[in-house]
Amino acid sequence: MSRFKVVVTRNIGPDALGIIRACNDIDMVLWNHDERPEREWVLRNAQGAHGFLVLMSDKVNDELLDAAGPQLRVVSTMSVGFEHCDLRALAKRDLLLGHTPDVLTDAVADIGVMLALMASRNAGQGHKIVLDGQWPKMVWAPFTLCGPQISTLSGAGRRTVGFVGFGRIAQATLKRLVPFGFQSCLYAGSKRQNQDANRERDVELGSQLGIVIERVDLEEVAKASDVVFLLCPGGEETHHLVSESFLRKMKRTAVLVNVSRGTVVDSNALAKALKEEWIWGAGLDVVEGEPDIGQDHPLVKEPRAVVIPHMGSGTHETRTEMAKLAAMNVVNGIYGRPLLAGVDVKRYVD
Amino acid sequence: MSRFKVVVTRNIGPDALGIIRACNDIDMVLWNHDERPEREWVLRNAQGAHGFLVLMSDKVNDELLDAAGPQLRVVSTMSVGFEHCDLRALAKRDLLLGHTPDVLTDAVADIGVMLALMASRNAGQGHKIVLDGQWPKMVWAPFTLCGPQISTLSGAGRRTVGFVGFGRIAQATLKRLVPFGFQSCLYAGSKRQNQDANRERDVELGSQLGIVIERVDLEEVAKASDVVFLLCPGGEETHHLVSESFLRKMKRTAVLVNVSRGTVVDSNALAKALKEEWIWGAGLDVVEGEPDIGQDHPLVKEPRAVVIPHMGSGTHETRTEMAKLAAMNVVNGIYGRPLLAGVDVKRYVD
Repeated sequence: MSRFKVVVTRNIGPDALGIIRACNDIDMVLWNHDERPEREWVLRNAQGAHGFLVLMSDKVNDELLDAAGPQLRVVSTMSVGFEHCDLRALAKRDLLLGHTPDVLTDAVADIGVMLALMASRNAGQGHKIVLDGQWPKMVWAPFTLCGPQISTLSGAGRRTVGFVGFGRIAQATLKRLVPFGFQSCLYAGSKRQNQDANRERDVELGSQLGIVIERVDLEEVAKASDVVFLLCPGGEETHHLVSESFLRKMKRTAVLVNVSRGTVVDSNALAKALKEEWIWGAGLDVVEGEPDIGQDHPLVKEPRAVVIPHMGSGTHETRTEMAKLAAMNVVNGIYGRPLLAGVDVKRYVD
Repeated sequence: MSRFKVVVTRNIGPDALGIIRACNDIDMVLWNHDERPEREWVLRNAQGAHGFLVLMSDKVNDELLDAAGPQLRVVSTMSVGFEHCDLRALAKRDLLLGHTPDVLTDAVADIGVMLALMASRNAGQGHKIVLDGQWPKMVWAPFTLCGPQISTLSGAGRRTVGFVGFGRIAQATLKRLVPFGFQSCLYAGSKRQNQDANRERDVELGSQLGIVIERVDLEEVAKASDVVFLLCPGGEETHHLVSESFLRKMKRTAVLVNVSRGTVVDSNALAKALKEEWIWGAGLDVVEGEPDIGQDHPLVKEPRAVVIPHMGSGTHETRTEMAKLAAMNVVNGIYGRPLLAGVDVKRYVD
């Protein structure tokens, strides 16, 4: 019986590792730490591997694939995004690429709602006041630290939520927002989507949730929304979609939430929009150039921006599911079975 | 025509002040600032007043009421709570007391949900990492900064929310939580409530929301809940209801949210519970002894506690409604009309 070798570049937890360990003909080389391994360790251990289980901070390129050798079958990343993987390099070797979509839908939708509330309610400033020991000196006045209200007050008019990108996470976010009093949902989607199928889905979802869902131009999302959620993929197509021009069209009381990719937002334009009060606030799980976002970054310095360090999928439950899915992907790939969640690599390189 | 005098101790915004200004026979003495006035200013201007519009930081006691004189008819506070008012002093003079309940229901429910998410998702720690410029040095590992998930993952079992106190704000909070996947709601209520009427309401609300609502002992709320919201009144009856014994009964993955009164929680017991990991986290809009909560307070030092400086009702919309209601209460009291929201002072002193 031939044996297989898999390289796992991080401690991905007992549940996921158990899936690989249960395969008697797979030898696992495990970097059993939280910190990523040196590149040299990865390249050395790559030799003879049939599968890799990697994270976003591991570069998957010609160098690594060459180091492994021609027996390599599959690369499985414990992430939804695969910007760290050279798709051309994978495609020309006919390699499979697995990733972990869908399982993080709820965790990301949760953090989106949290950031919308934090941004509108000045929770970043409030939290900082307490951390800095300033609460005792704070003047309590009728409008101290007030922000716009996400939920509707009875009789206080309609609330509209806008989405840039309207996939599973956006829909899960919308579902959570309905009882806050949102009656209308606008979204701008990719031109590549099937518009007729989407229209049917929108009518069905809208009637299920008791609200109106409408696909509109990006400009209309900016103009009409009380909260705008960015939930589109990264990459060139969406680079700096949220620009000075987008931000100038937004309501002065609106908040922007980015839980997708930092590159979707022009950080300097957003910092300016907050400083000059074109919009009310921003809640950001991602920032372009992360993790190199220091104290002097214009958005970190901006009191109306709440920035957290890319924690969108960070729950025990979700990360465990992601790790298990990544483990099943690498095992299936090694055994020549279809991946549970694979990236159609060739589609991207043609 | 006789004229009336009203003293307003803070800038409560144009909408509310407009209500008083519209009354031609009322002279308003206004402390038109955010900072509270010196006591001496209040006492001096009290003389001859028929009504007061005050905030929580203004003490309403014999001294003030004597300074006003026997023509005084009404005290209106722009707050729900009235711990700053000596009810006995009001009762013996047959004075009316107005407050501002209900209008802040949605704003407080919003912040409760926000704090539950922040506490479970380590948002306080994440926010601090970014503020401190530590994001670039952060190690991204599969379980970095992970917390328990508020929402249910498909197939990941049930979620139970617990409330201590189950009035309007708790019910508004529950409504918001349903789409996160909560299937069960437990609450502990005051023994003084009409149990039969509540049982009917619970069945109706539960079937409307598609979940099970059950009144149980305080102990059961502690034991069975994934999130516990404190939404009961302050005062002696609820003093340190959340004690070491309560906290020891909670789940290790549970979070505690206090948006009611700081006195409901024993702060030292909670700090110990967080440090020793009896529970996962806490989201606190209120802390006993506030606003004198400095950097050395055990809960401020505790990374698993998110503390914000009493911002529960802090939205423009809600504070404006509170101010308008307070203005209408003082006007109605002066004119001898029933208050829109009055405290039954005599009930409390008998």
